[in-house]
Amino acid sequence: MTERKNTEQHKARQQKLKEKVDQKIANAQTEQGIFQVITGNGKGKSTSGFGVVARAVGHGLQAKVVQFIKGTWDCGERNLLEQHNVEFAVMKTGFTWETQDREADTLAAKLVWQEAKKYLADDSVDLVLLDEITYMVSYHYIDVEEVIEAIKNRPAMQSVIVTGRGAHRLLIELADTVSEVKNVKHAFDAGIKAQRGFDY
Amino acid sequence: MTERKNTEQHKARQQKLKEKVDQKIANAQTEQGIFQVITGNGKGKSTSGFGVVARAVGHGLQAKVVQFIKGTWDCGERNLLEQHNVEFAVMKTGFTWETQDREADTLAAKLVWQEAKKYLADDSVDLVLLDEITYMVSYHYIDVEEVIEAIKNRPAMQSVIVTGRGAHRLLIELADTVSEVKNVKHAFDAGIKAQRGFDY
Repeated sequence: MTERKNTEQHKARQQKLKEKVDQKIANAQTEQGIFQVITGNGKGKSTSGFGVVARAVGHGLQAKVVQFIKGTWDCGERNLLEQHNVEFAVMKTGFTWETQDREADTLAAKLVWQEAKKYLADDSVDLVLLDEITYMVSYHYIDVEEVIEAIKNRPAMQSVIVTGRGAHRLLIELADTVSEVKNVKHAFDAGIKAQRGFDY
Repeated sequence: MTERKNTEQHKARQQKLKEKVDQKIANAQTEQGIFQVITGNGKGKSTSGFGVVARAVGHGLQAKVVQFIKGTWDCGERNLLEQHNVEFAVMKTGFTWETQDREADTLAAKLVWQEAKKYLADDSVDLVLLDEITYMVSYHYIDVEEVIEAIKNRPAMQSVIVTGRGAHRLLIELADTVSEVKNVKHAFDAGIKAQRGFDY
């Protein structure tokens, strides 16, 4: 009898939950491209962005990726997605910490930002991933107002994802969806080496 | 002169940061598979998991996906990844909220968990994504101790990702890396409809 009562209670709870969710779905009817910011100090921000690109490509949509930092690394996602005609624009100097040359980095950032602006103006592009652009904004390599302008004026059905720590307040304000990835704990801090195919 | 001084300060700051990071990299030398939990109420947990699968596949590794909830939906990631020989085990009843039948759901969960256990015992498998298994544990469809046991006893170099809200404390404890995705804001709450290729 208790088992049966539990089952009924469970069913009632689930029914209530379902009604709430169905109501929310019914209320959400605006069709438009979504601007999402994925920020915070935890692992999985770029990964999440690449996951959306994989999803879009799986539905036959056009996606473009602009990599502002990790682009010159051996990149599993790029290996896969380039096979599916996802175009990558990659910042030429690679990881800023390795180069430490502010002028060269600024030029490289501005150069790849030109590519990003082309994607953001092209209505045949369904999804643009601006991977780790937040750092370019924090370092003043790229002007935040220019980024805001380009995202605001993009084609109506185009979606945009910005990833990276410390997203600028203006980007957060403009975004439709903001996720913050928090680092609860990390294998790296326990002395475990970054694993190819998992961490990069 | 100020511009030059700024550049030098920037360089010094970056040098310090680089030394710290290099030291951490030098200290992290343990080679092993990583167990990661991606939890929290924000958007992008499964997406992040699928991003790691895409990365692994891009490096030619063997990955398996077990989907405990969203499996019967039209799924962009699956469309893409199945083209690259990623095997999916999918829970048969689909989304629990739609079925609301505790007995059927429990059976379906236990059935797909058998598949998951096979992957977790197979050392030709480099990565296993247990997508949304946390709900199965919360609802007591699958025993948490059994999940812990299978993950503990997996092949040494195999990595595992668990996604879903409200990850059980024992999963968090066992994990090498835990990320919590927080919902800062969500397009859905502003009345924007979920977009194919972006949200699913």
